[in-house]
Amino acid sequence: MDSASQTFRDAADLLTRGESHRVWSLIVTIFGDMAQGAGDAISGAALARLVGLMGIRPEAMRVALHRLRKDGWIDSRREGRGSLHWLTPFGRRRSAEASPRIYERVRSLPGTWHLLLSGGADGTGRAQLEAAVLTGDYLPIGTQALLGPGPLPGDLHGLLGADITRFQVPGWLRDQVCPAEVVALYNGFEADLGAVAAILDRGPPLGALETAAIRLLCVHSWRRLLFRHPDLPDVFFPDNWPGPVCRARFCDLIERLPAPGLDRLEAPA
Amino acid sequence: MDSASQTFRDAADLLTRGESHRVWSLIVTIFGDMAQGAGDAISGAALARLVGLMGIRPEAMRVALHRLRKDGWIDSRREGRGSLHWLTPFGRRRSAEASPRIYERVRSLPGTWHLLLSGGADGTGRAQLEAAVLTGDYLPIGTQALLGPGPLPGDLHGLLGADITRFQVPGWLRDQVCPAEVVALYNGFEADLGAVAAILDRGPPLGALETAAIRLLCVHSWRRLLFRHPDLPDVFFPDNWPGPVCRARFCDLIERLPAPGLDRLEAPA
Repeated sequence: MDSASQTFRDAADLLTRGESHRVWSLIVTIFGDMAQGAGDAISGAALARLVGLMGIRPEAMRVALHRLRKDGWIDSRREGRGSLHWLTPFGRRRSAEASPRIYERVRSLPGTWHLLLSGGADGTGRAQLEAAVLTGDYLPIGTQALLGPGPLPGDLHGLLGADITRFQVPGWLRDQVCPAEVVALYNGFEADLGAVAAILDRGPPLGALETAAIRLLCVHSWRRLLFRHPDLPDVFFPDNWPGPVCRARFCDLIERLPAPGLDRLEAPA
Repeated sequence: MDSASQTFRDAADLLTRGESHRVWSLIVTIFGDMAQGAGDAISGAALARLVGLMGIRPEAMRVALHRLRKDGWIDSRREGRGSLHWLTPFGRRRSAEASPRIYERVRSLPGTWHLLLSGGADGTGRAQLEAAVLTGDYLPIGTQALLGPGPLPGDLHGLLGADITRFQVPGWLRDQVCPAEVVALYNGFEADLGAVAAILDRGPPLGALETAAIRLLCVHSWRRLLFRHPDLPDVFFPDNWPGPVCRARFCDLIERLPAPGLDRLEAPA
């Protein structure tokens, strides 16, 4: 990081704020942003240069890669004196699933949603409800109901199911979906994005690797913010929620910071 | 009742089974079936002849009429040496609301339904939910949810609301909507309707007043049966529910037993 430009350092400081990102999660962001295609691969050397710019040591990267291999996200092989890494089919699928949520300028969500309800007091269907929550696609509402995207699944395992076309969402649920502290994080990130844009306006152009690193720090912070709340239509968020504005600013900024081709990444200046 | 024909007595016995109907409720059935129009009225004398055929004494009728006047269903005035009775606008409105449920050959229900949900564990909206139940239009599901006909009302008083276009209904809810004992009552009523039809087939034709009385006993038993369960699409009822078959038999039978005109009722044979 010593060799990085002042512009890069100012922008990177803003986006990390001294906080150390979880390295394995950052690597998921990198592959998802730059090497999601079948056949895409990044060498260990290029990856080390990229995460090095973000203040991560090679040993931390190797530990993270080991974990990602164990969890089935990443595959690797020796290539000459180094190694080559790529997303497994599982990793590619998960990245593809997350991409619309991260990159869409206006979040498009299904027109139909569904509710699953258990029987309530006597506990009918409580276990089935809890099993459905574990899939991660559902928003729990109280103890008796789950809200999920799309139409009803085929097998409801004894729960009451209903396809929904229109909602009216009360304040208590909007506060549950996006609590005040998450609204505050959005406001903070929106300000950071503005400050990064101002730094880029002022400074000399960044090199390709620095551009990629700032882009990835933006994507990574945005991804972490998104996963603090469920992916729901705007009507589920508090009135003062800056989500759509923040999303537009994020998209503006990463348009200014294009991902380099993988060949460019392997042959740095 | 002594002057009644054997055919009438056999049919009436089947439809009352020794059980004494609540007189005020029977009178609501009579006005709803025969005198629902604005300006329709029945004299005390004609009403006494009609309920007399069903085994009800004039004093019991007078007590019931007094209660119905007090509750705002019926209005009365002296007319010569007797009296005249008619449904109030409130009574006409309630009768008109109930009529499709009673008389439709194939029950037509709205294509849209809505769910109201409270916040669950922390009790958010529990009081609002309980207030909505009291309107009688809602089916409670557990402690947290209510299902109602038509689209969402304008003001949800802080509840989560959802318009529903399709259901998948589990066994536990179908058993709640129509428990085994109500299914048994349906089966019993279906058999009774068949037996009444057989009696009418065998015997000589009934007079106008007897026809009206048998018709009214059928309508009254059917109305009481309907109000043992909520008015929901067939998908909410147990697999072996004989509702649609029973409804068809009821409609067949009362087509054979036309309501007499009010003039005919006032001038009995």
